Amino acid sequence: MKVNGTPYRSLWWSDETKALQIIDQRWLPHAFRIQQLDSLADYCTAITDMHVRGAPLIGATAAYGMAFALAQDSSDNAMTEAYDRLHATRPTAINLRWALDRVSAAMRPLPEHDRATAALQLAHEIADEDVEINRRIGTHGLSLIRAIAEQKPKGAPVRILTHCNAGWLATVDWGTATSPMYHAHEAGIPLHVWVDETRPRNQGALTAWELGSHGISHSYITDNAGGHLMQRGMVDMVITGTDRTTRTGDVCNKIGTYLKALAARDNDVPFYVALPSPTIDWTVSDGVAEIPIEDRPAREVTHIQGRDATGISSVQVTPEGTPAGNPAFDVTPARLVTGLITERGICEASEAGLAGLFPEMAAP
Amino acid sequence: MKVNGTPYRSLWWSDETKALQIIDQRWLPHAFRIQQLDSLADYCTAITDMHVRGAPLIGATAAYGMAFALAQDSSDNAMTEAYDRLHATRPTAINLRWALDRVSAAMRPLPEHDRATAALQLAHEIADEDVEINRRIGTHGLSLIRAIAEQKPKGAPVRILTHCNAGWLATVDWGTATSPMYHAHEAGIPLHVWVDETRPRNQGALTAWELGSHGISHSYITDNAGGHLMQRGMVDMVITGTDRTTRTGDVCNKIGTYLKALAARDNDVPFYVALPSPTIDWTVSDGVAEIPIEDRPAREVTHIQGRDATGISSVQVTPEGTPAGNPAFDVTPARLVTGLITERGICEASEAGLAGLFPEMAAP
Repeated sequence: MKVNGTPYRSLWWSDETKALQIIDQRWLPHAFRIQQLDSLADYCTAITDMHVRGAPLIGATAAYGMAFALAQDSSDNAMTEAYDRLHATRPTAINLRWALDRVSAAMRPLPEHDRATAALQLAHEIADEDVEINRRIGTHGLSLIRAIAEQKPKGAPVRILTHCNAGWLATVDWGTATSPMYHAHEAGIPLHVWVDETRPRNQGALTAWELGSHGISHSYITDNAGGHLMQRGMVDMVITGTDRTTRTGDVCNKIGTYLKALAARDNDVPFYVALPSPTIDWTVSDGVAEIPIEDRPAREVTHIQGRDATGISSVQVTPEGTPAGNPAFDVTPARLVTGLITERGICEASEAGLAGLFPEMAAP
Repeated sequence: MKVNGTPYRSLWWSDETKALQIIDQRWLPHAFRIQQLDSLADYCTAITDMHVRGAPLIGATAAYGMAFALAQDSSDNAMTEAYDRLHATRPTAINLRWALDRVSAAMRPLPEHDRATAALQLAHEIADEDVEINRRIGTHGLSLIRAIAEQKPKGAPVRILTHCNAGWLATVDWGTATSPMYHAHEAGIPLHVWVDETRPRNQGALTAWELGSHGISHSYITDNAGGHLMQRGMVDMVITGTDRTTRTGDVCNKIGTYLKALAARDNDVPFYVALPSPTIDWTVSDGVAEIPIEDRPAREVTHIQGRDATGISSVQVTPEGTPAGNPAFDVTPARLVTGLITERGICEASEAGLAGLFPEMAAP
């Protein structure tokens, strides 16, 4: 999407320097810095230290990392070594492994002298596929926004609440929850986005940066505010992303999503979840009972990072020694979800709904 | 309540120095500093600059301020001047005005030479009345906690979630929402309190300080976490305070309270609100429609204060120029409230419930 008028993806290949360019996201939302990856170590550090973040973006970065390594040395041994080093950066990231497996499987049968070019081509394809999935999510979501806009007086903005950052920074482009918003903006539909702060890591600040950089009207609000705004008729719809959706339509997403879904239901505000189909977990049927929730470090809650006069630093909010709990995700039961926006269209959050769009994945 | 073993009120009169002592709350939760008020200007600054906060505490401080002024000069003119200066500190604070009016009305008929002693006596009474109201709220709330404890295996803690700081720091002692907790702790009932951070001003850090200082087990959590904890059966009850309750039982309290009430209802967790009866607004019947909600400065949301190596400072979380919305309160409809805990007992959150406890206040 655009940063002050210039279109960007979250990574891109420079034909000029023959190297991958990424946005070093550690500095966002306070500074926009582009980094060129010039060694396999650069690729590994970029993933480990979260210069890039978000499952699709990590996967695409790893695919380019394989292509980079094969351009240096296209032997089987070198390929295995690159795989292992890249995989070790975030060993639990499903998308990382998926991308590495895909590149390895495609390159191994090829003669060595063809691998570098073919791997780069495949990395481009992996990146483009992610863009295309998110573009499709956006066009489907656009229809929902357009329908709301048509019910309003001309010029009145459609007011959308979102939680966390399911934006283009977490994907290669468009984002998931944000894709319908970018599409609506490009279609000339006036929007106002309520951006949940999303404690404890304040990813709302990234969403605010994205929307502000692209020119979409928005307000940053505390996670506490959404219920009140809905109660006063100031929210037309909610769109969030998801980390994992069960085959029955339960949605596991950033902690606090469930509270917004409850408020949306209490106020008859439609609550949509945007997701690429690879994040559907076809093996799980009861999200609340079956999905383990990661407890993250207390320090994420007790300390807050931001910018001060000296640069980026952090302050401690709580008294010394205060214990803190930090569950990172919650599960929104399907009954609270108005619909799921996928790359194949919109469906009910239910086993029948998902099976209708993805019959080849659903259990027989 | 106790601070590291020593009992404190949030203000107290020193017979030794003949002066009021307060806790300078600006330094909390990071430092515990006691301040003596030695001039009328000290009293005014303490209220204006929020060394003291919370309606009952502000009222009591102002009453002592009148007593202080009359000890210097007990003439009608001096009394009027003291009234005006104290009233100007926070002109919209209802309790402040109520306390000043009460002292003025009682002193004006007295001979000048009796006023200083009588005003000090009245200030003591005003402070003690607040303590007594909160003590009674605590004994009534204790019965609820005890009933839950009796359903549990021996030694298993009653897990209570609270939002904001309705603690002893906002009153003269005990607090409102915290009073049942302190009473339960003193009765030997094991507790664990989930303390909502309460963005944007993080008053949960004050609650964490209170509970930690008194020795009550607790965890500080983001405002996003409570729904998840309830869903997983980790919360036995919710107790919050309130700024204003309608005669029909709608509860206006710190922003985000409504979201917790929704989650409590969705998970069959009892949701109680503790309130002194002076905070019931007998003129309002529909809280959502009738109570205006204060929009506070954006900076409270975009910047966060805490402690760093250099002392107390603040960091900016959002990108430069991000617009922010900051509604400070929300309204929890009576239908979501299990019961109201008042100084006269516990009642249903309804017109009939409140009228039953306060027949002299209810409309005929």
